[in-house]
Amino acid sequence: MSRWFHEVEIVAPFFDCDPMQVVWHGHYLKYFEISRQAMLDKLGYGYFAMRASGYLWPIVDVRLKYVRPAVLQQKLLVRSEIVEYENRLKVDYLITSNGQKLTKGYTVQVAVNDKTNELEYVTPKALWKALGVE
Amino acid sequence: MSRWFHEVEIVAPFFDCDPMQVVWHGHYLKYFEISRQAMLDKLGYGYFAMRASGYLWPIVDVRLKYVRPAVLQQKLLVRSEIVEYENRLKVDYLITSNGQKLTKGYTVQVAVNDKTNELEYVTPKALWKALGVE
Amino acid sequence: MSRWFHEVEIVAPFFDCDPMQVVWHGHYLKYFEISRQAMLDKLGYGYFAMRASGYLWPIVDVRLKYVRPAVLQQKLLVRSEIVEYENRLKVDYLITSNGQKLTKGYTVQVAVNDKTNELEYVTPKALWKALGVE
Amino acid sequence: MSRWFHEVEIVAPFFDCDPMQVVWHGHYLKYFEISRQAMLDKLGYGYFAMRASGYLWPIVDVRLKYVRPAVLQQKLLVRSEIVEYENRLKVDYLITSNGQKLTKGYTVQVAVNDKTNELEYVTPKALWKALGVE
Repeated sequence: MSRWFHEVEIVAPFFDCDPMQVVWHGHYLKYFEISRQAMLDKLGYGYFAMRASGYLWPIVDVRLKYVRPAVLQQKLLVRSEIVEYENRLKVDYLITSNGQKLTKGYTVQVAVNDKTNELEYVTPKALWKALGVE
Repeated sequence: MSRWFHEVEIVAPFFDCDPMQVVWHGHYLKYFEISRQAMLDKLGYGYFAMRASGYLWPIVDVRLKYVRPAVLQQKLLVRSEIVEYENRLKVDYLITSNGQKLTKGYTVQVAVNDKTNELEYVTPKALWKALGVE
Repeated sequence: MSRWFHEVEIVAPFFDCDPMQVVWHGHYLKYFEISRQAMLDKLGYGYFAMRASGYLWPIVDVRLKYVRPAVLQQKLLVRSEIVEYENRLKVDYLITSNGQKLTKGYTVQVAVNDKTNELEYVTPKALWKALGVE
Repeated sequence: MSRWFHEVEIVAPFFDCDPMQVVWHGHYLKYFEISRQAMLDKLGYGYFAMRASGYLWPIVDVRLKYVRPAVLQQKLLVRSEIVEYENRLKVDYLITSNGQKLTKGYTVQVAVNDKTNELEYVTPKALWKALGVE
C-alpha cells in the first residue's frame, strides 16, 4: 500500500442504473475519476495545478474488473491509490460496499508537454513535489 | 412549418435506458442536440462555423414534454425545426416512433460575442446568411 | 416557500464539462434528480417506497432556465422544493453558487398505477402521508 | 480475424467531448457497446434473444487503450469482433478514423443462468447456434 490514497463515498444514482437494475458498466469510470480527482486535489496536483505546471495528463490505458454489480442507491466506497509515478501516473481503484468487493481497476496517465505536445518519459517535477518524493 | 428542419433516426441504446426499462428523461436532450447539430451543419452554421463567426451560442432555456416513453432499441425519429431566429435561435423538437408522438420540446440559444462576452439582441448576420434570409 | 425542500452540494465534475469549459446543459437534470431523490428519501417516499406503494411516477414535463454557466469544479448548491402535490408532483429547483443564481427549473411527475397502468388524477395517499397533509 | 465482426460509424458528439476538446475517455465504452449490440443483433443473439434464451450476459472485464484522442465531430469507425465464445464471450474493438488507429480494447462477458443465477462455464447453445458453430 502506498502513502497516496483517497476514499470517496458515492450513492449509485438512478440515472446510472440500466434495465438490468444495476449500474451500467461504463459509469464506474466516472466514479474512478471522482475519487482520483479528489486525491490529486488533496495532494495539490489537481486539474488546475496540472495545467499550471505546463502538462496535460491524458489517460492512455484503463482496466476494469467487475466482481459484483452495484445496485440502485447502494452506498459505494471508491478507493484510489497511486501505485506508479516515476514514468507515468498509475492509479489503482477498488470499489467496495459494506466490505464486499464490487469492482477494481486502474488508469494510466502520461505527461504531455502542453507547448511541444511531446510525451515526457520521466514525469514532471511538479508531480514529484506534490508526492513529497523530491 | 418553417423552411429549416432536419430529421435523424436514433435507436434507443441500452446505456440510455433506466431501471424502468425506458430511456431516462434527461437523455432526450442528447437526441435533440444530435438532430439540431446535423441541421445546423447542413445549413452551414454548425459548431465550427459558429466559432469562426465570432459568437458563442449558449442554451438559455429548455422545455421537454413526455407523452410516451421510448423503450430499449426503439427506432426514434428526431425532428428539429428552427422557429425563431431574429433575436434568438429557437428550435422545436418532435420525437416520434412509427408515427406515434413520444416527446416534444424546444431549446433557446442566444448569441454572445466571444470577445466582449456581451449578448447580441439581434442575432448575427452569419446566421441570417445561413438561413438565406439576408 | 413550502415545508418540503432539500439542498445538496455537488462539485461540477470534469466528465460533465464540455468543450466550452462549462457543464453541458443536459447534465443539470442529473443534479436535479440527485436533490429530488434525497428530498423524497428524507420524506420517506423515495424510489423504493414509490414502488412499494403501487405507483410509478414518470416525469412528464421539464423546464430548465440557464442564467450563468457552471464551470469545472465549481461548488453547486442544488435546492429542490415540492410546490404541488394534489394532482401531480411538481418540484422546483434552484442551483446557486456562493449565493449567485446559476440555473432554475422544474419537473412534473404523475402517478401511474403499476397494475392498471392508468393515470391517477388525484395523487396517492402514500404521498400525502409522507408530506404529513393527510 | 474471425468470421464474426461488425463496423458502425459514429460522429463524436459535442456532449461527449470534455474541456480538453476531446472525447472523454469513459465514453468509448458506449461506442463499443453500440458496435457490439449491432453485431449481436445481426447474428440473431442481441439483447432480447439473450433474455429469451434464459441467460444474462454481464460484462466482467474491460480494457481500453488510447492511442490518439478523438476530437469533436470526428468520424469514427468502430469495429467489433468476436474472438472467444467457448467459455466466455470476448469481443475485441478497434476505433479508427481515416485509417488512423485511435482506440482499442476488449470486453469479456459471461453467461449467467437467469433462474439459478449461476455462472455457465461453457457458453449456452443459443450462442453457438447464432455463430453457426454447432
